[in-house]
Amino acid sequence: MAAFTDATTTVAELKTRVLAFVHERDWEQFHSPKNLSMALAAETGELMEHFLWATPEHSKAIANEPAKRARIADELADVVIYALEFANITGLDVAAAIEAKMAANAKKYPVEKAKGRSEKYDEL
Amino acid sequence: MAAFTDATTTVAELKTRVLAFVHERDWEQFHSPKNLSMALAAETGELMEHFLWATPEHSKAIANEPAKRARIADELADVVIYALEFANITGLDVAAAIEAKMAANAKKYPVEKAKGRSEKYDEL
Amino acid sequence: MAAFTDATTTVAELKTRVLAFVHERDWEQFHSPKNLSMALAAETGELMEHFLWATPEHSKAIANEPAKRARIADELADVVIYALEFANITGLDVAAAIEAKMAANAKKYPVEKAKGRSEKYDEL
Amino acid sequence: MAAFTDATTTVAELKTRVLAFVHERDWEQFHSPKNLSMALAAETGELMEHFLWATPEHSKAIANEPAKRARIADELADVVIYALEFANITGLDVAAAIEAKMAANAKKYPVEKAKGRSEKYDEL
Repeated sequence: MAAFTDATTTVAELKTRVLAFVHERDWEQFHSPKNLSMALAAETGELMEHFLWATPEHSKAIANEPAKRARIADELADVVIYALEFANITGLDVAAAIEAKMAANAKKYPVEKAKGRSEKYDEL
Repeated sequence: MAAFTDATTTVAELKTRVLAFVHERDWEQFHSPKNLSMALAAETGELMEHFLWATPEHSKAIANEPAKRARIADELADVVIYALEFANITGLDVAAAIEAKMAANAKKYPVEKAKGRSEKYDEL
Repeated sequence: MAAFTDATTTVAELKTRVLAFVHERDWEQFHSPKNLSMALAAETGELMEHFLWATPEHSKAIANEPAKRARIADELADVVIYALEFANITGLDVAAAIEAKMAANAKKYPVEKAKGRSEKYDEL
Repeated sequence: MAAFTDATTTVAELKTRVLAFVHERDWEQFHSPKNLSMALAAETGELMEHFLWATPEHSKAIANEPAKRARIADELADVVIYALEFANITGLDVAAAIEAKMAANAKKYPVEKAKGRSEKYDEL
């Protein structure tokens, strides 16, 4: 099997990979939307833990320290795995959802108003 | 532009889409790993909110209610968008990270020990 | 020093205890509202991890298993410690904030409408 | 009834206040440890949202803007309310748990090693 890379792997291939792992272990019984949303949130907590006390600027250096980088990649993988499994069990299409959300975001954050600004759309 | 679907869209295509949106608004300046990990975690909170008081079983029905389904898809999109943008700014390859993590998970959770069980690997 | 118990300890006493610990270590420099909100969120992730795959009903039994109970108490303590430290550095009065919030909640969730129901106030 | 303030209110008084609100609405049925840990985590997400794109330094100013301050106090109240209700339904003593955790933290972070440093204890 060829290695997975972002350039060559579709979202569906990743979803299938995750689902096969889950199915092989008979874990679908635990994978309700509720439980997966919790697992997803718990994993984002682990990702944040690498950056709690750093400045935003310094967090870039942390993500480049070799020892930390591998663990950060692991936490990011956990986050995306649970997001994909959430999509698997709910039947949602992630790429379509992203496209729809970005179209909505483009209306909420038109370039001419949002450029260089971090306020929420209702404060722009 | 053809519509994005999981079956036909690579992770890299989604990453590029997100990055273009960010770049157009000059938002890279806000997108440190620290800030993105926070935004990601905050979005998972919004996803969880749909399921707080439901049983795991009932959460499946919630994810199928048309009015809620659209909002749940939106929250899931937000989660994945921030995860992809985190990968963009750190230079991580999501698909490769998932493949590596699942290989590690397969060792921690061998089928014969983990089948049908929800315990953590150190309690199996 | 007498032991702390909920029955005899004021919120201010706990806040002072936390602040002394922080001050002794010269940690105020790391304790911005942003950083503390992240730490607080990360700790809630650790609390959730005990209950990810359990049913709500079974989560009660988990909280009573002696080995887990001690760890759960630890995670809960971490959550409240960071919440109190957030109040310390922002100058917020937790008890007053709770009283104000509960008065607002009482209006959003009048007993006759909310009794026995888990919907959000805008769906009641 | 006198107003609640941190200086004069015990943790037990706050716990009783929260429990009375819950009991009046017959909400104990929804308040398993699992569900409350989720609600707690979701509320911390809302607290974080105020600080996502700010620097840690600037987050102090945000917490002092009058309009935001009231909302931040509300989110903090929500966090502590759910933490106290978690303690209510599990029978945990928050003040005792904090005292025990801080004694353990004092061993993990002795002043002479931890002073002015933000590393985790296993990296000090």
